[in-house]
Amino acid sequence: MTEVVVTVSVPPDLPADLLETMTGGMYWLDEGVTSASLAPGRLTVSYCGRLPEERIRELVTAEVGRLVGSAADQPAPWFDGSSLGTARSPGSDPLPLLTDRGWAVEEAPGTWLLSGPLARLHEAADRLICDRLLSHGAEPVSLPSLLSPGNLRRSGYFESNAAAVNYVFHLREGRDTLAGFGRANAGRQDDALALESVPSTAAQPDAVLSPAACLPYLRSLRGRILDRLSMVTGRARVFRYESGATAGLRRSREFTVREAIVAGNSEQVQERRLLLLSVARSLVSDVGLACRIVPAADPFFATDLASLRRYQLAFGLKHEIRADLPFDGSSLAIGSVNLHRDHFGLTWQAEAAGEPAWSCCMGFGLERFIFAVCAQFGAEPSDWPAVLR
Amino acid sequence: MTEVVVTVSVPPDLPADLLETMTGGMYWLDEGVTSASLAPGRLTVSYCGRLPEERIRELVTAEVGRLVGSAADQPAPWFDGSSLGTARSPGSDPLPLLTDRGWAVEEAPGTWLLSGPLARLHEAADRLICDRLLSHGAEPVSLPSLLSPGNLRRSGYFESNAAAVNYVFHLREGRDTLAGFGRANAGRQDDALALESVPSTAAQPDAVLSPAACLPYLRSLRGRILDRLSMVTGRARVFRYESGATAGLRRSREFTVREAIVAGNSEQVQERRLLLLSVARSLVSDVGLACRIVPAADPFFATDLASLRRYQLAFGLKHEIRADLPFDGSSLAIGSVNLHRDHFGLTWQAEAAGEPAWSCCMGFGLERFIFAVCAQFGAEPSDWPAVLR
Repeated sequence: MTEVVVTVSVPPDLPADLLETMTGGMYWLDEGVTSASLAPGRLTVSYCGRLPEERIRELVTAEVGRLVGSAADQPAPWFDGSSLGTARSPGSDPLPLLTDRGWAVEEAPGTWLLSGPLARLHEAADRLICDRLLSHGAEPVSLPSLLSPGNLRRSGYFESNAAAVNYVFHLREGRDTLAGFGRANAGRQDDALALESVPSTAAQPDAVLSPAACLPYLRSLRGRILDRLSMVTGRARVFRYESGATAGLRRSREFTVREAIVAGNSEQVQERRLLLLSVARSLVSDVGLACRIVPAADPFFATDLASLRRYQLAFGLKHEIRADLPFDGSSLAIGSVNLHRDHFGLTWQAEAAGEPAWSCCMGFGLERFIFAVCAQFGAEPSDWPAVLR
Repeated sequence: MTEVVVTVSVPPDLPADLLETMTGGMYWLDEGVTSASLAPGRLTVSYCGRLPEERIRELVTAEVGRLVGSAADQPAPWFDGSSLGTARSPGSDPLPLLTDRGWAVEEAPGTWLLSGPLARLHEAADRLICDRLLSHGAEPVSLPSLLSPGNLRRSGYFESNAAAVNYVFHLREGRDTLAGFGRANAGRQDDALALESVPSTAAQPDAVLSPAACLPYLRSLRGRILDRLSMVTGRARVFRYESGATAGLRRSREFTVREAIVAGNSEQVQERRLLLLSVARSLVSDVGLACRIVPAADPFFATDLASLRRYQLAFGLKHEIRADLPFDGSSLAIGSVNLHRDHFGLTWQAEAAGEPAWSCCMGFGLERFIFAVCAQFGAEPSDWPAVLR
C-alpha cells in the first residue's frame, strides 16, 4: 500500500472545539488513516490502507463539509469569560523537558505516571479546585471508573461516542484457559498480548471505563425524588480512546478529573451552573492562567453532528475553559461546565419539584491544567503560580 | 444441567490468606462453579456445568490438597503485630445499612460509588495514611491505572495471576464499525453489550488495568542508577477480577489504594520495609482497629503455588494487616507490606550500589479499611474514631 496525502481547505476562524472534533474524527473514517493535522486554512490527512485514493479524498471532503456546516450558527458568548489573564510570550512545548527530567513518564500510549514537582503541581491543582468547591458546600463522593455498559447505553453515549469508549473483559474461568494464556504470554518481550490460545475469551466485555466522571453519580439518583439541591465533588480517573489524536498530556487516554456534579430542580440547577462558571473564572484568574471561557459542543462522531451541535450551542449547554498554549498559538480545553437539562432526570427517573430532575457538572482535567501551567509559566517550579505551590 | 454440591474437609487453623486463595481459586477450576464457601472444617462448592460429578469432585479435592500442602511450613511471625487493639462485640454486617442509606451504591458488579459520610470517611482514611507517609519523607506521585500488557508480562504477573487481570480494548477505527455498534446497542435496556455487529473488534486488547498500584512506578525506574533511597506515595484505582469471590466492599473489582513505594539498595530497602511495618502498626493503633499483622503470600492460581508460597513465606516477603470482622468472626486484609527484594531491579535493570536495586511497597485498600471501621465501630458516623472525622 502506498501512502496517500489528502489536503482539504478549511475556512478560517472555526471554533477550536470544532477543529479538534474535525482532526480527531479523521482517524475514524478508516483504520488506514495514519495522521491528521491542521495548519491555518487547511487540513492534511495521510492514509495508508485498502481504499482507493478517490474514496478517501471523498470521505475526508464530506466529513469536513459536514463539520463546517455545523459551525454556521455559532452563537455569541453570553457568559463573559473572554480573554482572562494576560497573554504570555511563546516559550516552548514543555513536554520534552518534563519527560527528560523524568517528571512525566508514558507507561503506555496515552497513560502517564507523574512524579517530582509535576506530581506536586497535580496535587496542588486538585486541592485548589476541590477546596473552592467544598467552600461552596459540595459534599465529597468517591467515583468509580469501571461502569456498567448499560449506564453508557441509557445515557445515550454509545449512539454518539462509542469510539471513545474503553471496553473491559476478563479471561473465562477455567484452568486450561489460564494455563494456555500464561504459557503464550510468559516468554515474549514486547508490549502486545498473545490471545491466540484463548480466542473466545475476549468475545464479551462486561464493563466499560468511565468516559465522563459524572455518569455513575447521576445513575445513583435513579428513582429518587430530590427534595433539595445536591452538589458533590470527587476526583476520578477517566478514560477516552483518542486513536491517532492521542498527544502527550494534552490529550491522553487516561486522565484525572476534579468534578462537581449538581442535581435538583431546573431553577436551582440553572443558578448553580452560573455559580460553577463563576468558580471556573475565579479559579483560572487566581492561578493567573491566560484563558477564555467559550461556548462549545461535544464531539459527535458517526451521528448527525450538525443538529446535535446546534442543539448544544443553542441552549448554551457546554462551555469550555480554554487555556492559551503560547508555544504554538493554539488553546487547550482544561475544563468544561455542562448543563444536562433534564436528560439524566429522564434517563434515571429522578424527580425534583414534580418534574424530571435537572443536572449540570463542571470538570477540570488535571493533567491538561498542569500542562497549561507549564506552557504559560515554564517548566521551572519556582516560576509556577504561588497559589499552586 | 443439574447442580452438583461437593463438600471437602479442610484442616482447622489454616492461615486466613490461604483460605481466601482456596475459596477464590475454586471459581477458576471451571466456568460452571457457581459458589464456593467455607465453614469451620469444610469447603462447599456448587457446580452447574458440563463436567461429570466425579471430575469436578476430583478437581476440588486436588486443589484443596495442593493448597493445604503449601501451608505446611508456615513460619512463626517475626514482626510483632499480633492482636493490636481490643476485640469488639459482634455487631452486624454494615453493608446492608450502608447501601440502604445510599452511602454505597454498586454501579456494576464489584464497582462502587461512595457518598455522604462514607465518602468523607474514605477521604479521611486516605488523608491519615498519606500524611503519615509524607511525614516520613514520601514524595507524591500520580499513578496511572491503564498499563501496558508488557509491564505485567515482564513483572511475571501473567504467569501467576492472569485470572485477576482486566483487559482493555477499543473499537476498530471505521465508520461502519461505529455505526453498526451504535445501532446494535442503542435500543437495548439491559446491562450487557451487543458486539455481534463488530465481532473482530474485540480480538486484540492493547492495555490492561493495573492489578497492583506500584507496577507503573517500578517500571519508570528502568535503566536508572539509584544513588539515593526513594520513597513515593500515590493514590491509585486498582482493578482485580475476582469472579464469584467478588463480595461487597470486602472484595471488589475496582478499589482505591493508598500506596507507598520504596526503591534503593538492599540495606536501605530492608530498613524502610521495617519502617513501613511500624507505620502500618501505628496507623491501625491510632484508629483503634482490632487487627493482626501476619505473614502471608499472594494468591497464585494455575502455577506451582506450593513452592511460590514457601518462597514468599521463607523470606518474609509479604505481611498483611488483617482487621477483625466481628460480625462473622473472620478477618479482612486491609493492607499489606511487600518486600520485592531485587525482583523489579532485575526486571527493569535498575541499579543501586552496583547491584540490582531492591524495592518494597505498602498499600492500604481504602474501601476495605473503611468497611472494617464500620464493622468494628458501627455505621453511625458519630461512633467512628475521632482521628477519622
